[in-house]
Amino acid sequence: MCVLGLGLIGGSLLRAATAAGRTVFGYNRSVDGVEAASADGFDATTGLDEALTRAADTGALIVLAVPMPALATMLDHIRAIAPNCPLTDVVSVKGAVLREVQKFGLRPRFVGGHPMTGTAHSGWSAGDATLFVGAPWVISVDDDVDAEVFTLVQNLALDCGSVVVPARSDEHDAAAAAISHLPHLLAEALAVTAADVPLAFALAAGSFRDGTRVAATAPDLVRAMCEANADHLVTGLDRAIELLTEARTHLATHTSVADLVEAGHAARVRYDSFRRPDILHVTVGAPQWREELAAAGRAGGVIRSALPVLGSRG
Amino acid sequence: MCVLGLGLIGGSLLRAATAAGRTVFGYNRSVDGVEAASADGFDATTGLDEALTRAADTGALIVLAVPMPALATMLDHIRAIAPNCPLTDVVSVKGAVLREVQKFGLRPRFVGGHPMTGTAHSGWSAGDATLFVGAPWVISVDDDVDAEVFTLVQNLALDCGSVVVPARSDEHDAAAAAISHLPHLLAEALAVTAADVPLAFALAAGSFRDGTRVAATAPDLVRAMCEANADHLVTGLDRAIELLTEARTHLATHTSVADLVEAGHAARVRYDSFRRPDILHVTVGAPQWREELAAAGRAGGVIRSALPVLGSRG
Repeated sequence: MCVLGLGLIGGSLLRAATAAGRTVFGYNRSVDGVEAASADGFDATTGLDEALTRAADTGALIVLAVPMPALATMLDHIRAIAPNCPLTDVVSVKGAVLREVQKFGLRPRFVGGHPMTGTAHSGWSAGDATLFVGAPWVISVDDDVDAEVFTLVQNLALDCGSVVVPARSDEHDAAAAAISHLPHLLAEALAVTAADVPLAFALAAGSFRDGTRVAATAPDLVRAMCEANADHLVTGLDRAIELLTEARTHLATHTSVADLVEAGHAARVRYDSFRRPDILHVTVGAPQWREELAAAGRAGGVIRSALPVLGSRG
Repeated sequence: MCVLGLGLIGGSLLRAATAAGRTVFGYNRSVDGVEAASADGFDATTGLDEALTRAADTGALIVLAVPMPALATMLDHIRAIAPNCPLTDVVSVKGAVLREVQKFGLRPRFVGGHPMTGTAHSGWSAGDATLFVGAPWVISVDDDVDAEVFTLVQNLALDCGSVVVPARSDEHDAAAAAISHLPHLLAEALAVTAADVPLAFALAAGSFRDGTRVAATAPDLVRAMCEANADHLVTGLDRAIELLTEARTHLATHTSVADLVEAGHAARVRYDSFRRPDILHVTVGAPQWREELAAAGRAGGVIRSALPVLGSRG
């Protein structure tokens, strides 16, 4: 297995997959990252073509773990050197990655992924072999994904201790806008609003700290994920602005915020009781397997152990 | 000292002030609360007039710790039985309380307060003698507050382990709108927005959990505090909606959220480095003492030990 990019996620993946007994090697652009990984006993290089040649020779699964702006360069080299290797990614916004992969003609062997984890820190030194344990790892089940590559990526996620959430790329991105990108913008708006009010910081406590925690994230990271998912995020923003504007009108005219507060509380209660049943009875490669997995994931289902594959002895 | 209302805050106050060696007695409307408090060894009654007569006889500081809707009844009885007792409150919105107190002619002996603490739970059983330790306790320094009553309330807050933030009632309420009431409405809007997106709950993690935590608060409590502070909250909502609408427009037209993200990050960084200097050099009762305290509180200052009082030996 070949990991391209040894930052927080890629570096953690190199550690976790190695700990699971896999043969893993990694590429990183910066010498510092490679030296640190090597010093920790891992197999890493700054030679991209060298890594990809080795991947092509061994038929290794290639994992894209670079930031969005570096993706095209990686795909260009993969197309030239290792076009037949199974390919996945751990970059957040799935639609944007899919469009790039398509552009380089690499879609047939590509199944996108997104481990829903992270910390406030970045770089090789922030990595951790246990980063993925218990975290949802989204794997794409778009109409054309290959059953064999899906299974390879599923097994990697399970080896790293994750639970797998099967999802279509467009549904992943709409959900990510609502549960990750929108919360970032609300936190930024809250921080800016409070900063202008005398005494606000002097009194700020739990609600404000929780509500602005993610505003402490580096602006470049927030921009990268929000801007790569612009269409879905505009939809989420429109809905949130509509709800707040309605509440503002009711509050100003009837001194009531009942509608928003009751709907919000009901939604949060529903979230707290959201169940995560195991997905057990889908055979990868069987008719409608992608649609069945997408529906199961949407209902909260997760894959906790490898699904049977059509034609394999289970 | 006489505490009216033995819920989370009043009940914690009865415990904390008793632990500090004060003579404290409490009133609660429900028999259950009084029986629980008595069983725990505290001096509590369901007889409001009885409690107030005792307060009048001993010149006790009366603390209003009832929900907003019960305030008028309390004030009516205080006016009749104990109009000369020093009076404070621990109800959140200061302007609304002040207007009620004024209506009953009790303003001369009133100095409002607001301990900035709480938990998700309520009632006597949720109380805790250490609830106030380290928490900011806002005490009003409006133009007309009495130096003697201010000092009584300050000493109570310090006895309970709080740090005192002196603030004008209107500034307190504007700040509370920005750092407490607005975050609640943003959390509600986020929960509602995500609830409508398939797969959102299946993927929800840290940002969503943090961003909606306060949406789990009982709707009645959220409504009570938001609606009692409607004017200031409308101002905060307008600003947040404006910021989000600008971000939405930039995102849709230029695929950029740079302005909001950078401003939000800068504000949060500024909050993280906000300092809390001790207020030491103001003499309560000296010329301009209220203005000086309001300015010091606005700048982040807190009272950690009792201020000198004009005419007392310090």
